[in-house]
Amino acid sequence: MHMANENDAGESPLTQRIDFQTDPSRYRHWRVAYDGAVATLFMDVDEDGGLFDGYQLKLNSYDLGVDIELADVVQRMRFEHPEVGAVVLRSGKDRVFCAGANIRMLGVATHAHKVNFCKFTNETRNAFEAAGADSGQHYMCAVKGACAGGGYELALACDHIILTDDGASSVALPEVPLLAVLPGTGGLTRVTDKRKVRRDLADVFCSIEEGVRGKRAQEWRLVDEVVPNSKFEEMVAVRAREFAAKAKTPADAKGISLTPLQRAFGEDGSVRYSLVEVQIDRPKGVATITISGPEGEAPASVADLHAEGASSWILRLARELDDAILHLRLNELEVGVLVFKSQGDAAKVLAHEAFMHANAGDDWLAREIELYWKRVLKRIDLTSRSLVGLIENGSCFAGVLAEILFACDRTYMMSGEFEGDNRAPAAITLSDANFGPYPMSNDLTRLRTRFLGEPGKVEEAARAMGKALQATEAVKLGLVTFVFDDVDWEDEVRIFLEERASFSPDAMTGMEANLRFPGPETMETRIFGRLTAWQNWIFQRPNAVGESGALKRYGTGARGEFDRRRV
Amino acid sequence: MHMANENDAGESPLTQRIDFQTDPSRYRHWRVAYDGAVATLFMDVDEDGGLFDGYQLKLNSYDLGVDIELADVVQRMRFEHPEVGAVVLRSGKDRVFCAGANIRMLGVATHAHKVNFCKFTNETRNAFEAAGADSGQHYMCAVKGACAGGGYELALACDHIILTDDGASSVALPEVPLLAVLPGTGGLTRVTDKRKVRRDLADVFCSIEEGVRGKRAQEWRLVDEVVPNSKFEEMVAVRAREFAAKAKTPADAKGISLTPLQRAFGEDGSVRYSLVEVQIDRPKGVATITISGPEGEAPASVADLHAEGASSWILRLARELDDAILHLRLNELEVGVLVFKSQGDAAKVLAHEAFMHANAGDDWLAREIELYWKRVLKRIDLTSRSLVGLIENGSCFAGVLAEILFACDRTYMMSGEFEGDNRAPAAITLSDANFGPYPMSNDLTRLRTRFLGEPGKVEEAARAMGKALQATEAVKLGLVTFVFDDVDWEDEVRIFLEERASFSPDAMTGMEANLRFPGPETMETRIFGRLTAWQNWIFQRPNAVGESGALKRYGTGARGEFDRRRV
Repeated sequence: MHMANENDAGESPLTQRIDFQTDPSRYRHWRVAYDGAVATLFMDVDEDGGLFDGYQLKLNSYDLGVDIELADVVQRMRFEHPEVGAVVLRSGKDRVFCAGANIRMLGVATHAHKVNFCKFTNETRNAFEAAGADSGQHYMCAVKGACAGGGYELALACDHIILTDDGASSVALPEVPLLAVLPGTGGLTRVTDKRKVRRDLADVFCSIEEGVRGKRAQEWRLVDEVVPNSKFEEMVAVRAREFAAKAKTPADAKGISLTPLQRAFGEDGSVRYSLVEVQIDRPKGVATITISGPEGEAPASVADLHAEGASSWILRLARELDDAILHLRLNELEVGVLVFKSQGDAAKVLAHEAFMHANAGDDWLAREIELYWKRVLKRIDLTSRSLVGLIENGSCFAGVLAEILFACDRTYMMSGEFEGDNRAPAAITLSDANFGPYPMSNDLTRLRTRFLGEPGKVEEAARAMGKALQATEAVKLGLVTFVFDDVDWEDEVRIFLEERASFSPDAMTGMEANLRFPGPETMETRIFGRLTAWQNWIFQRPNAVGESGALKRYGTGARGEFDRRRV
Repeated sequence: MHMANENDAGESPLTQRIDFQTDPSRYRHWRVAYDGAVATLFMDVDEDGGLFDGYQLKLNSYDLGVDIELADVVQRMRFEHPEVGAVVLRSGKDRVFCAGANIRMLGVATHAHKVNFCKFTNETRNAFEAAGADSGQHYMCAVKGACAGGGYELALACDHIILTDDGASSVALPEVPLLAVLPGTGGLTRVTDKRKVRRDLADVFCSIEEGVRGKRAQEWRLVDEVVPNSKFEEMVAVRAREFAAKAKTPADAKGISLTPLQRAFGEDGSVRYSLVEVQIDRPKGVATITISGPEGEAPASVADLHAEGASSWILRLARELDDAILHLRLNELEVGVLVFKSQGDAAKVLAHEAFMHANAGDDWLAREIELYWKRVLKRIDLTSRSLVGLIENGSCFAGVLAEILFACDRTYMMSGEFEGDNRAPAAITLSDANFGPYPMSNDLTRLRTRFLGEPGKVEEAARAMGKALQATEAVKLGLVTFVFDDVDWEDEVRIFLEERASFSPDAMTGMEANLRFPGPETMETRIFGRLTAWQNWIFQRPNAVGESGALKRYGTGARGEFDRRRV
């Protein structure tokens, strides 16, 4: 059990804290063999290593615990093994590649757990693709044995799929016929939009339990190549070398170590990291996340950055923030509102960020930290809680930290003198960070998305770069929602947070999912906006989750019974 | 009560057949004043004219019956009043523009009715926009009084919104705070993607029950202009004249009459139109829709086409097919599969269609018929039933009728000799119709969508235009899913239909919604793919529809009680 705190082990699943931190010494389900620029990632799930009791992870099926390890592998690959250009994903079992998400687990999990599980697994699959596209660290999948459901979705997230032609190995998306749910971890979307399978063939493929084998899998575009079993290993090695040759990082690059995070959990729900503090007001359903700006100066050189490694302010903050968001998502379901605050020296934030950005082209570590921020900010965008930015005196929302504000549903800013408050006046400072390196899932910057209707505002904002923009200017530039002075600030913020907490959490989730991502769509926005929404709907339907539903009945020998009415 | 058959009036709502045919003599909720190129459309809902018992349509709120009339208005405007260039939508009531969908109706309606109601209303809103974009018949909205929820969504679907500044009139989307559901008739999507409202302002706007008035409504981009009450009528007239001046159709164009459809309903669920026959196998959950090709020749001249009017084969077929689809959607919920067949002379189909297409540039009626086919085909795409094309001997799937096949989830084609069958061998014939005039909601043709992964296939298909493509060629070109010969045909088709009927209807709906629309997204695909899916999810959630949910409780004085857990 991957419990953060062994004291929790005796508690019921719902009160066990799910911990997103792990490290290779604790892996139970994955192992990695490193060979220069090629890493081979073996999925070898420990049947008895489920995150919760009540199911066994047979046939390389996975639960959130397995995926937490996978996310750790993917993250460490970027930072600890920059020399790797090709990651070959394969099974550590004999006859099965991966049977997908564990169905017993899905059958007993709450709706919220299912939805959050799918979101997290989706984010990790996206991280496969981002590793290839952004860092030249390409995932490829060597499929031997049955590769079904979430197993095939793992393959789909890779840049290349090789299937052995041994008469038995197959790829399949059997969710619909078997379980009456969708292949929701990107499956349907990647079939249509990444692999561009003809829609009628996709319909057939998604309707057959046994999947597709051999040449047909290639003809239908489900895999990139089908190789005779006798040549399989050879071809996998060839392709791995080809991908490795496309690595962006020098072969002698030396990784840094992602050392354990410093954190302490309080009984009141608070979490204290070195730079992030989470305070939870449970009755109000509000978590306040306060970010500390850097104390020290920016690294003086790339060598210094590498020497600082995981302790550097800008990487440490990203890791802590990422962990805090995941913790709140899975462990604090009644917290409907996340309030972001910051305190610190904006000039120092800008200096740290400028150093990173200036070196992101030439230094792999600077690049990886910037790319990690891109992923963390996307994780915030995709968090289905109301996101609120409070720009108070003494805050340091500059550059990359200002991006957090633009990820928020609303922002409130202090304006004018506050009695007895001698901190620096509330300000936002824009930098290059707000105009390119951190696109949202829709591939636009947050400011570009914000000003879809008034594109000139983006240029106007760009002209204000580097300036500490106080309330009047920030409003004029359209960067904040509301500003309040000393007289009104406290009441207005309180009233808003109370109002927000009074709304239906579901309506908030649906509204935010629609309002946050206007403009162009990408495979990512489709996965999270369309596929996920349909899956969430199905995850509520009696035909799947009712007592006679297919998901509940799976494994009992009885098929699901369906209300045949279409909606 | 808009019941098709007054004999049904005594039956419970669930067994009443909803009829999509109406005409101005029967309108209870709308009236139109025609003045040359300007039509004024008054919404003046009869409180007691609800489609079902149990609610009153207060405050210009609407139900499906009101929207069926509206769809009829919009359709007749295109065909019967081509001289109209500007349609001014306004309220026939004093103090209210429109309060949106009737909440009591939503509170008592089944999930399936709610979902289908929303889909139909969405299609009609889209038809407003299509009228402006495709035919220069622009809808503009003159808002006086409260314009809330579905009322504002009506306004959003117009090409221009004028709001009076009388200190009381407002626009609002109060669904979230009031009902814990989404503005699901395009509201959220049009706010972000059509009007491009800044996302934080959209968040505020969608959270306040009372909406936004006056100048702020314009500043936030919620309306196009705010006009002092004293100048309101004058400005509405000015804008109407401006839009009317953009009409594409000559002022002296004389409309045709959309005469009543010929249809007969059988007790077994069958519907017989003049060119469309619907047979229903209830135990199997399959409806077979058989289309008849033209008996007569194509019109010899544009004058002939106008003289034929609604009796022309190509318009009559579109109307009958449209009605049949809507009938099946709302009245035959247990029919999960629609099978399309055709019988007739493909050459004649091509001649009728070629005449229409050749004249669509110069003749308004030919253009309108072609544009109507675009809408009918989209309606098929968006029908959440499994769509199957059976290409049998004697069929006439040519050009526009072949588009129906490309709208299907799968197609099966007869191959080779069939004993005792002396009809012409099964064939598909492509024409210009398959390469441009009928884009899907994603703005691509169905063939372009089909071959996203192999764009060369579109050109290959284009080279085969005009040729009767039998099974071998059709398969080679990728135009059909499966072909079967005399030995296998019957069994294969039967087995497939039985299998399809055995799947969860919900899983089918979700799967088809994801597989049918790959490639680019448009406002339409976002409304039907993303917004709708979230709304469907919320329409299942106890926070909205449970006994203590906000939708159920509305009007009782008690607020909804929410499970505060986010998912």
